[in-house]
Amino acid sequence: MEKYREDFARDGSAGKPIAVVRAEDAAQVQHAVRWAAEHRVPVVPRGAGTGLSGGSSAVDGGITISLDRMRAIEIDPACQVAIVEPGALNIEVKRAAAELGLWYPPDPSSYEICSIGGNLATNAGGLCCVKYGVTTDYVLGMDVVLADGSLVRLGGKQIKDVAGLSLLKLFIGSEGTLGVITRAILRLIPAQTAGATLVASFATMKAASEAVVAIRSTVRASMLELMDSTSINAVEDWRSHGLDRTIGALLIAQSDAPGEACGAEIATMLACCEEAGALEAFTTTEADEAELFVSARRNAFHALEARGGVLFEDVGVPVPLLPDLVDGVATIATRAGVEIAVVAHAGDGNTHPIIVYDATDPDSEARARSAFDEVMALAISLGGTITGEHGVGRAKKGALPAQLGPDVLALTRRVKDALDPLGILNPGAVL
Amino acid sequence: MEKYREDFARDGSAGKPIAVVRAEDAAQVQHAVRWAAEHRVPVVPRGAGTGLSGGSSAVDGGITISLDRMRAIEIDPACQVAIVEPGALNIEVKRAAAELGLWYPPDPSSYEICSIGGNLATNAGGLCCVKYGVTTDYVLGMDVVLADGSLVRLGGKQIKDVAGLSLLKLFIGSEGTLGVITRAILRLIPAQTAGATLVASFATMKAASEAVVAIRSTVRASMLELMDSTSINAVEDWRSHGLDRTIGALLIAQSDAPGEACGAEIATMLACCEEAGALEAFTTTEADEAELFVSARRNAFHALEARGGVLFEDVGVPVPLLPDLVDGVATIATRAGVEIAVVAHAGDGNTHPIIVYDATDPDSEARARSAFDEVMALAISLGGTITGEHGVGRAKKGALPAQLGPDVLALTRRVKDALDPLGILNPGAVL
Repeated sequence: MEKYREDFARDGSAGKPIAVVRAEDAAQVQHAVRWAAEHRVPVVPRGAGTGLSGGSSAVDGGITISLDRMRAIEIDPACQVAIVEPGALNIEVKRAAAELGLWYPPDPSSYEICSIGGNLATNAGGLCCVKYGVTTDYVLGMDVVLADGSLVRLGGKQIKDVAGLSLLKLFIGSEGTLGVITRAILRLIPAQTAGATLVASFATMKAASEAVVAIRSTVRASMLELMDSTSINAVEDWRSHGLDRTIGALLIAQSDAPGEACGAEIATMLACCEEAGALEAFTTTEADEAELFVSARRNAFHALEARGGVLFEDVGVPVPLLPDLVDGVATIATRAGVEIAVVAHAGDGNTHPIIVYDATDPDSEARARSAFDEVMALAISLGGTITGEHGVGRAKKGALPAQLGPDVLALTRRVKDALDPLGILNPGAVL
Repeated sequence: MEKYREDFARDGSAGKPIAVVRAEDAAQVQHAVRWAAEHRVPVVPRGAGTGLSGGSSAVDGGITISLDRMRAIEIDPACQVAIVEPGALNIEVKRAAAELGLWYPPDPSSYEICSIGGNLATNAGGLCCVKYGVTTDYVLGMDVVLADGSLVRLGGKQIKDVAGLSLLKLFIGSEGTLGVITRAILRLIPAQTAGATLVASFATMKAASEAVVAIRSTVRASMLELMDSTSINAVEDWRSHGLDRTIGALLIAQSDAPGEACGAEIATMLACCEEAGALEAFTTTEADEAELFVSARRNAFHALEARGGVLFEDVGVPVPLLPDLVDGVATIATRAGVEIAVVAHAGDGNTHPIIVYDATDPDSEARARSAFDEVMALAISLGGTITGEHGVGRAKKGALPAQLGPDVLALTRRVKDALDPLGILNPGAVL
């Protein structure tokens, strides 16, 4: 049972559940939720447990419904949809689609280990979102078990559908607080073309951010990622990827424009980087070579986890304010005396400052937690968000009122109460 | 006041409002809604009045809040967003964005005359949606006046934001039943490349539909529209566009892939058309020549309106079922003895059967109304929707329960009641 108590945030919020229900189908989910409603017992839905906000932390005296046994995937190539159970991993959906020449774009860094149900519950993003959008853009239909155990079927295989309220969209990103997703119909598109990659180094994150803003205004890059010096060095310490430890920032950009347009887009991006003062830049059409850099970016989480206790931020700002956010984070790190590495889905203004602290030193942890709150406050002060793709969960709910304000919070509460009057669905998360 | 009573559906549902409030700013909207809440008076929000479902029909004894005076548009080129008041026309936003090399994609056929507020209220689609998505995909932020007159500010200029429930998405497509939108922050993208157009004629809509299914599986067309023989002839009767009156179906497809890839995509589409038995096909990169066909497609509504009374359908099905829908509509037309023209955003499976009847003959009208219901029932039986982009309004609300079923309808009602406990917002629409 222990491994169903926490997610990757390991935020200390996990309680002791009275049971873990490893449901095999929607009927079992319904059965469990009905029982919970009768007995007013909290229900925590759980996918692969790779969340970074404590959204699936177990609740004392509650039941955790794990969807890890519900992993069926069916591809309907004519309709270009995948019909997926929530426990299926993102990579499994991608693979099943790819076998038929189709593509499910959303690609969280954890796509090899995270579940579709969790992706929907958090409206997960990823690296290709800068061009292809986030999870909600690919959900056409959904089965959801409501707080009373009834099951509703929303949407379907049709692409456009405005009949009635957008309930489908309301459940996406609701982090298990409104219902338990038991099936999803996901939109697929034709396979992505191979494309090319640009890797550019900069003296500062500020310069790299300026390149990002310039690129965005002319080209729709299919990837636009940033790593700062701290994350570069953490990755190199963990496992060498051949990155230059001396630079201030690394930009990894891709174009998947077809044919010769790809080269033209890469050239435009290169010019933007040079204009912003890039130290060095190179381009490649070799997938393996590109993957070395992309995986360095993806591995930053693991590399930083190896350094000590970590707190994962997911703050976002309007893209031109990226340099301000990065500067502010550096100031917070210095003041708090903690290490904060920054990796970013820069093209979307969505950054992951990762705070590293000495887990054996309560003072270090306290300073890290204080910095964690300060970074979120900074994002809000820049007109941004405390979470771009990870969700609020339990780790960030303290900061949510400051972002939403009392009116939006009250509105949120009204919707929550309407759908979960007993308050049994994932209590303590988000609100 | 008369011209604020009906929308383009002219569905006979319009009552006599006690007042039309032509608000100049959000504060005036709040004032009016607060007054209405105090006096339990119905409130109907209204944009440009170009809706096709009676969603903004005036209500007896209610007030209509027209947003047609609130049309400010501000472009923030660095953030690539437009900050727009609801009365601004879609074309005005497109133009303002274009001046800075940016593009607001959603393009309902009525884009020259419809308002952004109405686009958001219906989650409007259009012709480029097959590649670029619908209105909801471009809304980053929104101000909404709630049923009690308070104003909430949702989202912002940040691109990714999952903090709290997806309330923003809930309001989009809610047809004025949950609040009055007073401001929107819309995502812009770099200007579309010029592209090329393929026009192909077919003996039957079935053959053309097969070409559409084939195209979709390999290429992401930026437009994939169909006209049937009846709509072609109606357009030619109304104003000659040089269309061939003898064919069964006309496919208008575009690629906006950059550079040489555009030609390759057009060639692939052409091959799909030939494989599906196209009678004739030609391609062009001349924008004017292409616009002749695209405008013929857009003008089908006006051309058919000139023939008599019309009822606008907006049914959608999973794309491979397009031929079944088209066949079924033809059968319904024959049985009912009415003319039904079909134009379609075929790449999305979203069709507009337009039922033409003799408005001076009550029997003809009765048969048309019966056919209207039958077409919606047909779409539902094919696993589709009664409305892909126009909204339910008053014209289609009779068919909504059959599509949603009692459980989803009850859920809808719970959300509606939570947000509008007095039931003053657009009563009679949707539910």
